[in-house]
Amino acid sequence: MITALSNPKVKDVAALQKKAALRKEKGLFAAEGRRFVAEIPPERVVQAYATPDFAESPEGRALCERLHPETVSPEVMEKMSDTRSPQGILALVRMSDQKLCDLDPARGPLLILENVQDPGNIGTLFRTAEAAGSGGIVLSGDSADPYSPKVLRATMGAVFRLPFVIADDLPGTVRSLKEQGVKIFAAHLKGENLYTEAAFPEKTAFLLGNEGNGLSEEISALADRLIRIPMEGKTESLNVAVAGALLLYEAMRRRICPPASS
Amino acid sequence: MITALSNPKVKDVAALQKKAALRKEKGLFAAEGRRFVAEIPPERVVQAYATPDFAESPEGRALCERLHPETVSPEVMEKMSDTRSPQGILALVRMSDQKLCDLDPARGPLLILENVQDPGNIGTLFRTAEAAGSGGIVLSGDSADPYSPKVLRATMGAVFRLPFVIADDLPGTVRSLKEQGVKIFAAHLKGENLYTEAAFPEKTAFLLGNEGNGLSEEISALADRLIRIPMEGKTESLNVAVAGALLLYEAMRRRICPPASS
Repeated sequence: MITALSNPKVKDVAALQKKAALRKEKGLFAAEGRRFVAEIPPERVVQAYATPDFAESPEGRALCERLHPETVSPEVMEKMSDTRSPQGILALVRMSDQKLCDLDPARGPLLILENVQDPGNIGTLFRTAEAAGSGGIVLSGDSADPYSPKVLRATMGAVFRLPFVIADDLPGTVRSLKEQGVKIFAAHLKGENLYTEAAFPEKTAFLLGNEGNGLSEEISALADRLIRIPMEGKTESLNVAVAGALLLYEAMRRRICPPASS
Repeated sequence: MITALSNPKVKDVAALQKKAALRKEKGLFAAEGRRFVAEIPPERVVQAYATPDFAESPEGRALCERLHPETVSPEVMEKMSDTRSPQGILALVRMSDQKLCDLDPARGPLLILENVQDPGNIGTLFRTAEAAGSGGIVLSGDSADPYSPKVLRATMGAVFRLPFVIADDLPGTVRSLKEQGVKIFAAHLKGENLYTEAAFPEKTAFLLGNEGNGLSEEISALADRLIRIPMEGKTESLNVAVAGALLLYEAMRRRICPPASS
């Protein structure tokens, strides 16, 4: 059992929780909590850690039989954990190696996120995209790290179930999608059509921008069409996770109950 | 100019920022930032504070001529502020004294929030409700305080433009609304109708529950109808601000482009 807070493994996990650059360098991230860790495809778990209490608990036993965690003291778990009251199970996980071709726009619309910064927004977009049957997510390299503890928690596990890629060259990635026949609809205050009026083809992607500044001109210019979500009152914009939800559910709404006449 | 961090006014504002109970007792809250403070109806501003830099800035001058702030040193502003880099203007504001009759369900659907805890969710719901033309918001007394600094920021000013009430007796308030002819639609996993299929009458309210536990049985039982938002994948629920947005925009969608046939 690891009891020393100075143990290098303990320090490594604690550092991974805090530093996006280190996660990227190692290709690893830490996931916590029973239900969340249970979602992880076992072949991606590099090493698990559990407290004795968790390993012997009725809810913990099956998971521990599968993951063979190293036992750590509660103090060590607290040091490795990003939460105030850790549940007693933590896994070091290999990042996804999904490519653009793993996204499936024929299944449901893709989301393309440019420089979205709030971890809660990224997490909520993953969660909503899964619920709305999205074919996957593209995040620009300057968006919040989807492997940060806060984003992971906010996805409610969707980060392991929905394909996604991080695009260091977002314009290039958008062009590749267009070459594959994906039509790009940008949520934009200057949209010429309402989102309820635009015709979404079989392969659609929704482009959403930064919380404060919206989409860059470079990326908006790549869109096939700018669409607008109507707003009353003095509101200047919607929260980006709300905008994404409205677009994804508008597309889902049409799949579930197509209009009587086109 | 106030320069002493120990000045009682400074301590009072700092305490108001941190303590919901104190805000409630005094009927006051603190609002910060130029654009945000500019939204406040002037008759509700009890006292404003500004740094000399802000008062003399081109963007600050007009606001300061209107509010006559007391001048404080940057250190004092930092102590009073809830943010890391305060903008140099802060106002002590009287809470709204709106009553249930100030809400306007004939204008657009109301939101009724039971025990919604996340400040970001409450803020986003205010912002979205204004954009979707809602007639106002009812918050149960155990929801997050709408006057907390985090909620205020997340509303983007909508908290000053949208009527709302805090209901210490939520069941009683829901019954009052029903007696006024408002039909209550609860977002519920067990909803018998999809939200896209339910007929929303002229006076509608949407009922949304706590992030982890949803609606209580007592409150669900008061709803005229339970409606369901469809979900694919393994998602167990949607974020409450996303659910609220989908319902409000579904109602708005029908006002803007009513179906050809009913």
